[in-house]
Amino acid sequence: MSETIAGSRRGANVEFRQVGMALPRIDAPGKSHGKTRYAGDHVMPNMLHAKVLRSPLASARLRRIDVSKARELPGVACVLTREELSGRLAPTDIAGQTGRKRLATDQPILVNDRVRYQGEPMALVAAETVVIAERALELIEFDLEPLPGVYDPFDALKPGAPIVQGTDNVVAKYKVRKGDTEAGFAAADVIIENTYCTQFIEHAFLEPEVGLAWVDENEVINIRVSTQVIEHFRFIADAVGVPHNKVRILGSLVGGGFGGKEDVTVEIYLALLAKATNRPVRLCYTREDSFFGHGKRHPFTLTHRTGFTRQGKITAWKVDMTADAGGYVFLSPYVLLYATVAAPGPYRVDNLHVDARAVATNNMFTSAFRGFGAAQACIAHEQQMDEAAKTLGIDRLELRRRNFLRTGDLIATGVPIESAVWSDECMTRAWEALGERTPDDGPIKIGRGVAAYQQSYGRITWLHDTSEAWVGIEMDGTVVVRSGVTDIGAGQVSALAQIAAELLGVHLTDVAVYNSDSSTTPLAGTTTATRALYMTGNAVRLAAEAVRERLLRRAAQEFEVAHGKVDMADNRVFVADHPERSMALKDLVAVCASEGVHRSELVMFRAPFTGEIDPETGQGRVHPDYTYGAQAVEVAVDTGTGEVTVLKSVGAHDVGLAINPDAVAGQIEGGAAQGQGYALSEELRYEQGQLTSTSFSEYLIPTAMDVPEYKAIILESRSGVGPFGAKGIGEPALTPVAPAIANAVADAIGVRIFDLPITPEKVVNALQRLGN
Amino acid sequence: MSETIAGSRRGANVEFRQVGMALPRIDAPGKSHGKTRYAGDHVMPNMLHAKVLRSPLASARLRRIDVSKARELPGVACVLTREELSGRLAPTDIAGQTGRKRLATDQPILVNDRVRYQGEPMALVAAETVVIAERALELIEFDLEPLPGVYDPFDALKPGAPIVQGTDNVVAKYKVRKGDTEAGFAAADVIIENTYCTQFIEHAFLEPEVGLAWVDENEVINIRVSTQVIEHFRFIADAVGVPHNKVRILGSLVGGGFGGKEDVTVEIYLALLAKATNRPVRLCYTREDSFFGHGKRHPFTLTHRTGFTRQGKITAWKVDMTADAGGYVFLSPYVLLYATVAAPGPYRVDNLHVDARAVATNNMFTSAFRGFGAAQACIAHEQQMDEAAKTLGIDRLELRRRNFLRTGDLIATGVPIESAVWSDECMTRAWEALGERTPDDGPIKIGRGVAAYQQSYGRITWLHDTSEAWVGIEMDGTVVVRSGVTDIGAGQVSALAQIAAELLGVHLTDVAVYNSDSSTTPLAGTTTATRALYMTGNAVRLAAEAVRERLLRRAAQEFEVAHGKVDMADNRVFVADHPERSMALKDLVAVCASEGVHRSELVMFRAPFTGEIDPETGQGRVHPDYTYGAQAVEVAVDTGTGEVTVLKSVGAHDVGLAINPDAVAGQIEGGAAQGQGYALSEELRYEQGQLTSTSFSEYLIPTAMDVPEYKAIILESRSGVGPFGAKGIGEPALTPVAPAIANAVADAIGVRIFDLPITPEKVVNALQRLGN
Repeated sequence: MSETIAGSRRGANVEFRQVGMALPRIDAPGKSHGKTRYAGDHVMPNMLHAKVLRSPLASARLRRIDVSKARELPGVACVLTREELSGRLAPTDIAGQTGRKRLATDQPILVNDRVRYQGEPMALVAAETVVIAERALELIEFDLEPLPGVYDPFDALKPGAPIVQGTDNVVAKYKVRKGDTEAGFAAADVIIENTYCTQFIEHAFLEPEVGLAWVDENEVINIRVSTQVIEHFRFIADAVGVPHNKVRILGSLVGGGFGGKEDVTVEIYLALLAKATNRPVRLCYTREDSFFGHGKRHPFTLTHRTGFTRQGKITAWKVDMTADAGGYVFLSPYVLLYATVAAPGPYRVDNLHVDARAVATNNMFTSAFRGFGAAQACIAHEQQMDEAAKTLGIDRLELRRRNFLRTGDLIATGVPIESAVWSDECMTRAWEALGERTPDDGPIKIGRGVAAYQQSYGRITWLHDTSEAWVGIEMDGTVVVRSGVTDIGAGQVSALAQIAAELLGVHLTDVAVYNSDSSTTPLAGTTTATRALYMTGNAVRLAAEAVRERLLRRAAQEFEVAHGKVDMADNRVFVADHPERSMALKDLVAVCASEGVHRSELVMFRAPFTGEIDPETGQGRVHPDYTYGAQAVEVAVDTGTGEVTVLKSVGAHDVGLAINPDAVAGQIEGGAAQGQGYALSEELRYEQGQLTSTSFSEYLIPTAMDVPEYKAIILESRSGVGPFGAKGIGEPALTPVAPAIANAVADAIGVRIFDLPITPEKVVNALQRLGN
Repeated sequence: MSETIAGSRRGANVEFRQVGMALPRIDAPGKSHGKTRYAGDHVMPNMLHAKVLRSPLASARLRRIDVSKARELPGVACVLTREELSGRLAPTDIAGQTGRKRLATDQPILVNDRVRYQGEPMALVAAETVVIAERALELIEFDLEPLPGVYDPFDALKPGAPIVQGTDNVVAKYKVRKGDTEAGFAAADVIIENTYCTQFIEHAFLEPEVGLAWVDENEVINIRVSTQVIEHFRFIADAVGVPHNKVRILGSLVGGGFGGKEDVTVEIYLALLAKATNRPVRLCYTREDSFFGHGKRHPFTLTHRTGFTRQGKITAWKVDMTADAGGYVFLSPYVLLYATVAAPGPYRVDNLHVDARAVATNNMFTSAFRGFGAAQACIAHEQQMDEAAKTLGIDRLELRRRNFLRTGDLIATGVPIESAVWSDECMTRAWEALGERTPDDGPIKIGRGVAAYQQSYGRITWLHDTSEAWVGIEMDGTVVVRSGVTDIGAGQVSALAQIAAELLGVHLTDVAVYNSDSSTTPLAGTTTATRALYMTGNAVRLAAEAVRERLLRRAAQEFEVAHGKVDMADNRVFVADHPERSMALKDLVAVCASEGVHRSELVMFRAPFTGEIDPETGQGRVHPDYTYGAQAVEVAVDTGTGEVTVLKSVGAHDVGLAINPDAVAGQIEGGAAQGQGYALSEELRYEQGQLTSTSFSEYLIPTAMDVPEYKAIILESRSGVGPFGAKGIGEPALTPVAPAIANAVADAIGVRIFDLPITPEKVVNALQRLGN
C-alpha cells in the first residue's frame, strides 16, 4: 500500500507522461512467468562443478594441505591450493576503478599461511559432478595449528591482543571535530549518555552466490555471475594474473544483493578453475557456503553523549563508535566513514565530536550491507533522541522537529545541505498514518516508535564517480538503452527504461535495455551506495534528451513551427498547441535517418568531485546529496513471552521524485521487512569466532506470516540530484526501521533494550529487571 | 610472398610502430589452434534442428501445400508455410538503416503463390533431430503448376516474355552521358567493338550458412549467425513482426562471406521457428542448401565500342551492359550501379556513353559478390584494351599507360579523382615481377596478361554511411575496442586492434576487440563494399586519438614539458627527446583515473555525403574514393587438352597504407585464387532455370594443387581516405585477376574466348576454329 505526495516542483512546467507512473516493471513478465534466467540457470556443455574447502577454525596456521587423494578421485578435474596460487591476493576494494590506492589487498585467494576467520577458503575443486566435488573436499587432508584469536573489537584494541591486521588491529578510523563540544556541553541543561549495540547480520538473499565461467577462443575469461558489480573484472584479472581486458563479466538479474554481492564472491575461483581446466566451470553456493562466503554487516558499539537545553535544543553531541571488521578489511573504511557522517542523524549539531574506528578480529569479515554505516548510526541516534525526549519530558516528535536540519544548514562534515530536508513532513505523515492506537490487551502491551534519518545516495565525492549510458532510437521508433548497470532486483533497469520512454515519447514496453556486460555495455559503475538511479538515471536522461532535442528540432522544421513548439508522446510527434498536427515517431525517425541526423547518444555522467575530507576535523564534502525520511511503527509486546509483533509500519520518505512509485514502494516495503528482522530476530552469533547458525532454521528472517501490511508514503520534493530531482531510496528505506521498532518496544514496556536484536529472551529479562 | 613499396607520405613525420607491421592477427591463435567457435559450433540445451523445403521448379504456381503428415511425424515441433506467414515479405535491402525507400521487398519469406526460381523456400520445419526434420520435408505434399519461364535476360526483355518482376522485367537501369560520344567516335582512327560475357558463379565459402536462435526472457529473439551484416536485425524484426529492438544478432568469426552472407540467409527462418516453438533452433545449410540458398554473382553481357586515335588515345567509349538479376531484385541495383561507374576502368574517357540494365529471369537470384559489378566491368574493359592494343599495334601496357587516369581527372561519373592513381606503377611492377618468360614447350603455349582496374571502397555516398567505435584504456594499460563490425575472415578486427595499439602505444596483443553484437556494440555498419577498414578503421583511429590526446596532455604535465613533446610506445610514455624520462602507461592511466580524466571515447565516423547522381547523365559523386592496381599473370595452355595452368600471378595494388601487410597480402592472394576460379573453372549452369551443379565435385574451385605461388606487391601512396591514408583492398584484390588470365590465354593461343569461364572445351573449340 502506498501513496504519493508531490511537493514544490523544480521545473514546474514539466508534466510527465511515463515518469511517475506505477507501470509494471519491464523485468516483471520474465520474473512472474518464470522465464528469467538467473546466473544459476545457465549451463554449458562439458561443464565442471566447483566446490570450496573452508577452514573450520577461525584463527589458525595452515601447516600442511595435501590434495593428492582428492586429485586421484575419478571425475576430479582440478584441485587448487596455495601451492598453485603462490600467495596471490584477492583484491576487495571498489575504488580500483578510479586508480586510487587500494584499501585492502591483504587477503590471499586461498589461505596461504594464516587463517583469520572461520570459513576462509583453503582449496578449490572442480569435478564432473557436484557429488564428486564434495567427495573430493572430504579427501583433502590438512593440518591447522590453532592460534590464539580475538573475537571482540574491544579485546582486539587491548595491548598484547593477538594481531589480526596491521599493527594494532585498527583498520580504519575517522573523527569529526566541529564547533566547540566542551562549550556545548557546558551550555546544556541536560546531558544524555547511552551505549547502543548492533549485531552481525546476514544479507539472506534468496539466490546464493553463483556463477559460470569459461575461457573463449580469444583467451577471454567469461564469467556469468550474480553480482552487483560487473566492474570487478579488473580485480579478477589481477587475481588470476591476466590482463584486465581479458576478463568479461556478464551479469544477470540478481536474486537479491543488499551489498552482499558487492564484493567479489565466486568469480575468482571460477576464473582460476576455468583457466586451469580450459572447461566451463559452475559454482553455486549452498546456503551454508553463503553464510561463510560473503562479508556480514558490521556490528557497532556506539556511545552517544548529547547535551540539550531544557527546550530541547541540542547543544553538543559526542559519539564514540567501534565497529567489528572481522578477519579482513574489505569495505570497513567506507562503512565507517558513512557511519561517521551519519552519526548525529538528520539533526543540526553545531558542536559535534565523533571518534570512529573499525577493528579487526577473528570473526567473519564484515563489509557492505544496505544502509552500510548509516543504518547502525541511525539505530543509535534515534534511540538516543527518544531517551532524551523521555528525560526532557518533550514529545518525541516535537524534540526531533526542534532539531531537524533545514536546507542550508551544515551537516556533520560541515557542508551545507543543498536539497530539501523534509524530515518533519515525512515523520509527521508516517506517524499520522499509524492511525488510531491499538489498545493494550492484558499482557499484550502496545508501543509506538518513530525514527528519522539522513542517508547519502551516490558514492563518496572524491572517488570521481561516473556512469555511462547510451540511448538510441531504432528505425521503427522503438528505443534501446545500453548501460552496464546491474539490476539487483530493485527495478534499476526498468527505471532507466521509464526515463528514456518519457523523454522519447514512447511507451515503456517500447524500450529495450541491454545491460550488465563489462566488455560491451557502457560502464555504469556499481549498483551500490544507492547510486544506480542517481548516476545512470542521469546518464540515460542526458543521452535521451540529446536524442530528443535532435528529433524535435527536425520535427519543428517539418511542421514549420519554432523549436520548442513540438512535443512527443504515444509514439507520435506533434505541435504542442495543435496536437492534431502530428506524425508518427517512426516517420520522423525515417526522415532523420535519411538525412544523417544522429539518432543515438553516449553520455558519461559525472558526480561532483571534491578532495578528501580534512582528516583532523572530518570536515568537507563526502556525498553528492542526502535522502531524508522517517519510519513509524506500532508494536505489540507479549510481556509474558517477550515476543514482539509489528502491527503497523509506515515508511515516509522524500524520494525527490518517484520514477516508478510501485518500485519505490517496493523498496520501502522491503526495507521495512529487512529492518524488522534486524530489530527483532536476525543475528549471526560467533562464539569464539565459530558461527552457530548456518541455515535459515537458525537464522530467522521475517516471513510473510511475521509482517503486517506495510505502508509506504512517497513524498516528492523534486529537489534531489538524480534525474528530474529524484533522490535515492534503495538503502534509506531500511535505515530508520530498526530504531523505530526499538523505540516502539521501549514505549510499550517502559524499558529500553540497548542491544539488537530485541529477542523475546531479552524482553523477558528486561521486564524482569524492571520488575525488580 | 609479398613486398611493400612505400610512396610519398602524407604526414611525412609519422613513424609507425605497430601499423604497417606484418604482425600475427589477433584471430590467428584461435583459428590455428581450432579454438575459434564459428556460428555452427554453438549449441544449446533443448535445441531444435531446422530444414527448408525448396521448390524443385524455377517457374511455377504453388497450388496446394499440405504439411499435415509432416506435423504428425513424432519429433516434429513446428512446420511453417505461407498459411502461417500470411504473405509476409523478406526485405533484402541494405539501405534500410538510413531510412531510404527499400529497393526490394518483393520476396515473400515462403512462397506465397508464384515460384520465381528453383530452390525458392516453401516450408520450414523444426524437429528434434536433423534426420527427423529431413524426413518431415519428405512428408510435405505440394502441387506446383509449371508456368512458362524465362531464363535469359535478353529473352526477358522481348515483348511478350513472361514477366518475373515489375512490368518489363527491368529491375534497375543506369546510364552515363558524358562528353560527346558521337564526336569522339568521329575523331577516332580505330574503333574496336566486342561483346564479353561473364557467368553465374558461387561464393563457395568454406562455412555454409548457419545460425542458432533463441527467445530470451525479455522476448528478445537472439540469433547467433554467420553473417556479414548484424544490422539485418531490423529486416528480421520486420519480417517476423516484432519491434526492431527485440531482435539481437550476435555475429561470429565468419568462415568466408565474399558478399554471399551480406543478404539475410537463415536468420528469418530461425527467428520464426524460435518464436513459434519458444525453443532454441539451429539451422545449418548443407552444401546443396547453400547452392540454392543465397544469391549468386550476376552474369553480365557487356558490349564495348571504343574509339582510339592511332597513338592510342581513347576518343570515345560506349558500353552496353545487361545483367541477369534472377528471380528477385536483391542488390541488383547496387551491383549495376557499380558496374556502370567502373565501366571504362581506370582510364580517362572524356566521351562516355553507358547503358546498363539488370533484368529479372527465372534463374537463381543474383546479389553481392566480392567486386560486385566492378569485377564484371573489369573483365570487359581489360579484354577490350588488349584487343585494342593488338589492333593498334601498341604494347598492351603502353596503351594502358597512355590512358590511365591521373589525380584530378574526371572519372566516369564526372567527378575528379582526389587520391593517388598509381595504376601505372602497379601495372609496371606486377608485370616486371613476372620475371623471365617461361618458354613454350611443344603443345604447351605460354601467354601473359595484365589487367588494371578502378574500384571503389566504401558505400554509395548518398547512403549516409556511418560507423561507430569505442576505444578505452583499462586500468592496467590494456586497450579495449568495441565495435559492431563483423570479421569475415579478412582480419577486419585485427586491423582495428592494430590501429588502436599504434595510437595508444601498446602491443597488438594488449588490445581486445569486442565486436559483432547488434544490441550492445556500437553499430559499425556492414562488412561489405570494402568499407570496414575505411569506416570503422577511421572511427577507431579518431576514438584512439582522442584518448591518446588526453593521456599525452596529462603526461606532458607530469614530465613538465610542452604538449606534443611526449610520446607513447611499448606500454610506456616518455619525453620524445629524452626517452629515458618515461613512465609506465599503466601508471599514467592510474593518475588519469584518480583525477577523472576520461579514458575512453565513442566516435561516429561519417562518410562524405552527396545527393544522388543525375539520372539522365549519371554524373555525380557515387563513392568516397577508389583503389587502383593491376594483376599480371603467366599461363600455360595445353593446346592439346585445352587446359590452362596459371604459372605466375602477381597482384600489385596501391592500398594507400597497409595496416597489416600480411593481411593485405592474404587478400591479394585470396583474390588471385578466387579470380582464377572465376576465369577458368567456376560456373553455375542453369538449364531452363535448373541448376546442374550442386556440389564441389561439379562446381570446380581452384584447389591448392591448381594454384602457383601468388605474389602480392603492396604499394602505399598514403593518399586514401581510410585511416592513415589507407585505401580498401578486400574486393579490388579480386577484380583484375580474371581479365588478366583471359588476356594471358588469348596471348598464349592467339585467339580470344569472349565468355568466361575459359574451360578446356572452349579452348579446344577456339583453337579448332582458329585452325579452320
